[in-house]
Amino acid sequence: MSSELTTAEQAALTSGGDFWHTTPVERAGIPAVTVTDGPHGVRMQASSGDLLAGVPATCFPPAVASASTWDPELLRRMGEALGDECRAQDVAVLLGPGVNIKRSPLGGRNFEYFSEDPILTGVLATEWVRGLQSRGVGASLKHFAVNSQETDRMRVSADIDERTLREIYLRAFQRVVIKSQPWTVMCAYNKVNGVYASEHHWLLTEVLRDEWGFEGLVVSDWGAVVDRVKSVAAGLDLTMPGPDAEGDAALVDAVDAGRLDAALLKTSAERVRKLIEKAGARPAGGYDAEAHHALAREIAGRAIVLLKNDDDLLPLPADGITVGVLGEFARTPRYQGGGSSQITPTRLDDALTEITATATGPVRFAAGYTADGDTDEALLAEAVEIARHSDVAIVFVGSVHETEGADRDSLDLPAAQIALIERVAAVNPRTVVVLSNGAVITTKPWDEKVPALLEGWLLGQAGGSALADVLFGRVNPSGRLAETIPVKLAHHPSYLDFPGEHGHVRYGEGLHVGYRGFDAQDREVAYPFGFGLSYTTFSYGAARASVTATGVEIRVRVTNTGSRDGREVVQAYVSLPGSRVRRAPRELKAFANVPVAAGETVEAVLTIDRDDLAYWDTRLGRWLVEGGEYLVAVGSSSRDPRATVTVHIAGDPARIPLTAESSVGEWFADQRGAEVLGKAFASATAGAASDSPIAAMTADPEMLMMLGSLPLSRMAKFPGSPLRAEALDGLVADANS
Amino acid sequence: MSSELTTAEQAALTSGGDFWHTTPVERAGIPAVTVTDGPHGVRMQASSGDLLAGVPATCFPPAVASASTWDPELLRRMGEALGDECRAQDVAVLLGPGVNIKRSPLGGRNFEYFSEDPILTGVLATEWVRGLQSRGVGASLKHFAVNSQETDRMRVSADIDERTLREIYLRAFQRVVIKSQPWTVMCAYNKVNGVYASEHHWLLTEVLRDEWGFEGLVVSDWGAVVDRVKSVAAGLDLTMPGPDAEGDAALVDAVDAGRLDAALLKTSAERVRKLIEKAGARPAGGYDAEAHHALAREIAGRAIVLLKNDDDLLPLPADGITVGVLGEFARTPRYQGGGSSQITPTRLDDALTEITATATGPVRFAAGYTADGDTDEALLAEAVEIARHSDVAIVFVGSVHETEGADRDSLDLPAAQIALIERVAAVNPRTVVVLSNGAVITTKPWDEKVPALLEGWLLGQAGGSALADVLFGRVNPSGRLAETIPVKLAHHPSYLDFPGEHGHVRYGEGLHVGYRGFDAQDREVAYPFGFGLSYTTFSYGAARASVTATGVEIRVRVTNTGSRDGREVVQAYVSLPGSRVRRAPRELKAFANVPVAAGETVEAVLTIDRDDLAYWDTRLGRWLVEGGEYLVAVGSSSRDPRATVTVHIAGDPARIPLTAESSVGEWFADQRGAEVLGKAFASATAGAASDSPIAAMTADPEMLMMLGSLPLSRMAKFPGSPLRAEALDGLVADANS
Repeated sequence: MSSELTTAEQAALTSGGDFWHTTPVERAGIPAVTVTDGPHGVRMQASSGDLLAGVPATCFPPAVASASTWDPELLRRMGEALGDECRAQDVAVLLGPGVNIKRSPLGGRNFEYFSEDPILTGVLATEWVRGLQSRGVGASLKHFAVNSQETDRMRVSADIDERTLREIYLRAFQRVVIKSQPWTVMCAYNKVNGVYASEHHWLLTEVLRDEWGFEGLVVSDWGAVVDRVKSVAAGLDLTMPGPDAEGDAALVDAVDAGRLDAALLKTSAERVRKLIEKAGARPAGGYDAEAHHALAREIAGRAIVLLKNDDDLLPLPADGITVGVLGEFARTPRYQGGGSSQITPTRLDDALTEITATATGPVRFAAGYTADGDTDEALLAEAVEIARHSDVAIVFVGSVHETEGADRDSLDLPAAQIALIERVAAVNPRTVVVLSNGAVITTKPWDEKVPALLEGWLLGQAGGSALADVLFGRVNPSGRLAETIPVKLAHHPSYLDFPGEHGHVRYGEGLHVGYRGFDAQDREVAYPFGFGLSYTTFSYGAARASVTATGVEIRVRVTNTGSRDGREVVQAYVSLPGSRVRRAPRELKAFANVPVAAGETVEAVLTIDRDDLAYWDTRLGRWLVEGGEYLVAVGSSSRDPRATVTVHIAGDPARIPLTAESSVGEWFADQRGAEVLGKAFASATAGAASDSPIAAMTADPEMLMMLGSLPLSRMAKFPGSPLRAEALDGLVADANS
Repeated sequence: MSSELTTAEQAALTSGGDFWHTTPVERAGIPAVTVTDGPHGVRMQASSGDLLAGVPATCFPPAVASASTWDPELLRRMGEALGDECRAQDVAVLLGPGVNIKRSPLGGRNFEYFSEDPILTGVLATEWVRGLQSRGVGASLKHFAVNSQETDRMRVSADIDERTLREIYLRAFQRVVIKSQPWTVMCAYNKVNGVYASEHHWLLTEVLRDEWGFEGLVVSDWGAVVDRVKSVAAGLDLTMPGPDAEGDAALVDAVDAGRLDAALLKTSAERVRKLIEKAGARPAGGYDAEAHHALAREIAGRAIVLLKNDDDLLPLPADGITVGVLGEFARTPRYQGGGSSQITPTRLDDALTEITATATGPVRFAAGYTADGDTDEALLAEAVEIARHSDVAIVFVGSVHETEGADRDSLDLPAAQIALIERVAAVNPRTVVVLSNGAVITTKPWDEKVPALLEGWLLGQAGGSALADVLFGRVNPSGRLAETIPVKLAHHPSYLDFPGEHGHVRYGEGLHVGYRGFDAQDREVAYPFGFGLSYTTFSYGAARASVTATGVEIRVRVTNTGSRDGREVVQAYVSLPGSRVRRAPRELKAFANVPVAAGETVEAVLTIDRDDLAYWDTRLGRWLVEGGEYLVAVGSSSRDPRATVTVHIAGDPARIPLTAESSVGEWFADQRGAEVLGKAFASATAGAASDSPIAAMTADPEMLMMLGSLPLSRMAKFPGSPLRAEALDGLVADANS
């Protein structure tokens, strides 16, 4: 397959052959390959008439759940399983993982994304990609970049400063590209600072390839391309879906007319060809649907977050109690969101069936509300009656609808469900609430009325059995929040600027996304980032840190002080008090997911990459590790430090060169600059009339404060200035010598 | 003086002759005129050796205080008095008022600005300008624009979206220009969205002159000009200070070389000449220093805000009590800030002397802390001892230093002062705290330990006597907060983005400045915007609203239910529930400052300009009054509504034209668009194969939700789309016909 392609063939290769295939070039022996939606299942379109209905496949827990495991190993195994299912379906590229940062809890597609934190996102997604690609199937890292909302998603410009872009919204992409080289990256629909992601040369070429060394192919999100020529020029290789004869022709015309560098089109076509070749190398295969269901159940069980468990109400005994199961979602599970990721599952567990199978005593069910979440007084009364006569009441509630294409407009449960919780809790003090939701919902104030609360997210096809596993203690919960649960929407750092209007959304909170913002603004939250209870308890020893060539290694001994085996997710949050730049009060930099048997002690080892300590310096245009005494708080959540340790980190060498536009204050803050400028002032003042305004200025501390922000060049323009404009070049040369 | 000027003469006219004078052109009979700093006094430089020392002049209350009067009439009288002092000193233009919005309480120059609200700022500044200019002296409306901080003030770019710029940061400028035509506008030092204000054609010409009809001259802030040619091209007329022979020559060269339109330079020079002519018309005059001192005292008394007065501790009886006066600031008043506005007062009242003169019983004083705000245990102990043996303890505390050139880094009182308050309050339950500060300081939690708290701001030279007037009840306090007092700095809406770094500051909170942000984010505050107590009480009747051609008139009856004459500041806050655009929960739109005698009832009349109901529509590029049911809350502060009334406002005619880039959702939201597009879909689907993907899409509600944000042009590119690209022009024409 080394034959030279014509320009027309090249152009054809860079657009799809249909919705889910590349364009074959028979003359050159290039076949078509299949790409299809993920990320938590393989959604092969079943019929040409319905884009969204797929053939049966395992519906693994969506990213909102898998991320709550905080377990990279589980993500790798999920990736492997997905790879096997792709092979079975002859899929070359699975469209995932989605690593956009959850900027607002309203984001309609949050259930497809991992976290509000870029390190957690990046670590988990890297393993997912490694797992998938170990099967000879390509990943598609998406949506590149800053695709944080559904509102006006095809046009909206994410207006964002570079430091925030680099440190928050690109950081997970960067990590995954560098550590796992996904076969493809998918560009986003939206604009970034006014330029379509599909036409963003800086993003698609300068950052992705030149800086990060991405070797794969950039594919468009479906329908993201506005102008084929601009996209290819920017570094986009494959436009989907197709065919797009008009766009192909436009590319040929542009090359012929010299408006598009022929080499760029050729390179893009070669990348498509290489992808097809690579995909051709994968062996066919099948998969064990039962084993995948079991894996889906394992991940789901590990994803559930125990938010509240007063008086150890959970786990429930399987024997000797009557259980009221209340809420339609126990029977009709909410297990995935709507849109392109929607899977037709191979089977579907529901909690009601699984609870009934587990409990030896009577289990009674009432729907409590309608499937649409509406109030129905008869359903409600029936549920309350059952609750009144049960030893334990388990109330299933959650979000009614979350889908690609639309952001939510509230974080609150439907009123009917809150009524159910409150009325049940009023008659049964042993009430457990189980949430099913793809993105954060608020729990205040009703959660204060119930002793136990499980955050069950959207758990995929085995969610029902996984919930029973946790409720009855077959699984000791170890899930942790990958996103903060606020007391109310208005408290969220993104609240003032989401979802923007009239084509623009300002990323106004900057770096202070999620817990970074809650912490910076000193906000109470309902449940903090990283939080999750266990059926056992853990104590921490002292933390020890050692600086290595590549970063920092933190060691801390964790003891399971209870009587059940469990897992602790040990988290390291880093601060740099007195930093030269604005930083969040604390940032997750590493974590370890450690199983600890009852009564045992294990040493958790957390590795912080030195690169992850860097901030993006906009003056130097590069990552920079600032030297200083870093404070590392090791603990059980972002607001539950258990041990702290200070680490001295040597900074990267960096000096901001002084220029004529540097201020008097900056000159004096620089050792060499202070010398040079001081000398210049002294000699000028010595020669000047003592009543010259500037002679007086430089002698007066109050005036010097006012002058501190004056650029040298501007000072030189002041009448009577001790600096002459002609002397500036010399001073600058001197200061930087 | 109609002789034609040479290009060189024109150039010379557009830069200063020295620091405080324009350049004379003797050949053409054009004299120099004097411009000098304000805004709360006339600061004529006393000697050439010290730029900041002025000849004695009345130091009126800085804007932080005068704004707290909420009384336009007082501001007009202050302007008149300043005009008289200018005439006495032969000053042509007084450099004020400063109408920048207080974005952050840390702003070093906040004491020179009025408020966090643009309407309050605009109303007060308009009257100040009218008063000043009624004396034949010009104002200089400054700093144009978005000069909200001192940090890096000469270079920093205020990165801000247009709606926020228009509705918050330009709105007061716009009002003052339109309503009072200041002789000059002063450009700011900083950049706005990357362009120096001194070179900002859009600001200085398109907005200021073309839109608002400004007829005066634009002068630079001192040292704000980087490039004379660029500045003149942008619409800046007069560069200060001077001389600037090099810049003058650059202008001549640029005109000669055709790089600068000769007409622009000529126009700028003509504007300078016209200003000089106008200034020449003013009669000389003197002023009565005692009368001005009395006016300064009146304004200061009206500016003091009574924040707390448990059990009516205040006013104090003049007779029969022993008074402890504690705190250095009682003897050495903090009455103005540092920098270019600093006045050498004609006299200076201190509170200690005035209290001693008023009280008939013993008054004892202790400094309590050093003048620098440092702790001195002996001073503290002495103060506590006096407090213990006094009937009433009055503690004077405040900020130690506020100045142009530097932002603050904390809102807290010095520790020594907090210690003084707490130790005094511990021994004397009748403790009054008096604050002197140029910008907000935090009062939590120490204010909970004292029964009475007066916010005394920086009150100018008569502050000492004004404080005594209020303490002893000669003046019944009626000042109101023109800025919110937060519980802590981290709660402030600007907190995450102030003061920026590396040359940029993001106005991330957007419209949600000050109380708008606290309200939107549902934040508790220490004392809300508009708040202030009185020695009497007021009750409100029902509010009535009538819509007029130019706005809304609100009438409400206010009754003084106490036994002292007083003043109520009746405030109208407007909301539009369900607005099409993001808005703050409530916005001040009008207020009335009404004297009400004890037991009397008066009808307050508040006039809302229809223009002030408009928002800036970025799609249309113009102000737009949205039609709907506006909620007007009339009350005593932003968080104390006493009467509400709903007003139906007819909207401005506006239709956003549909284009091929309008989304499917926008087409369907438009009556005509829905008709046209619906027809197109129907006919395409009728003709299409039923298994075409898009035929299926348009039939499926879930898919339609996903398609809602798709621009028509993009939909037309989808394979199997019901829209052909060729048909779009026709649809657009149809929809807009």
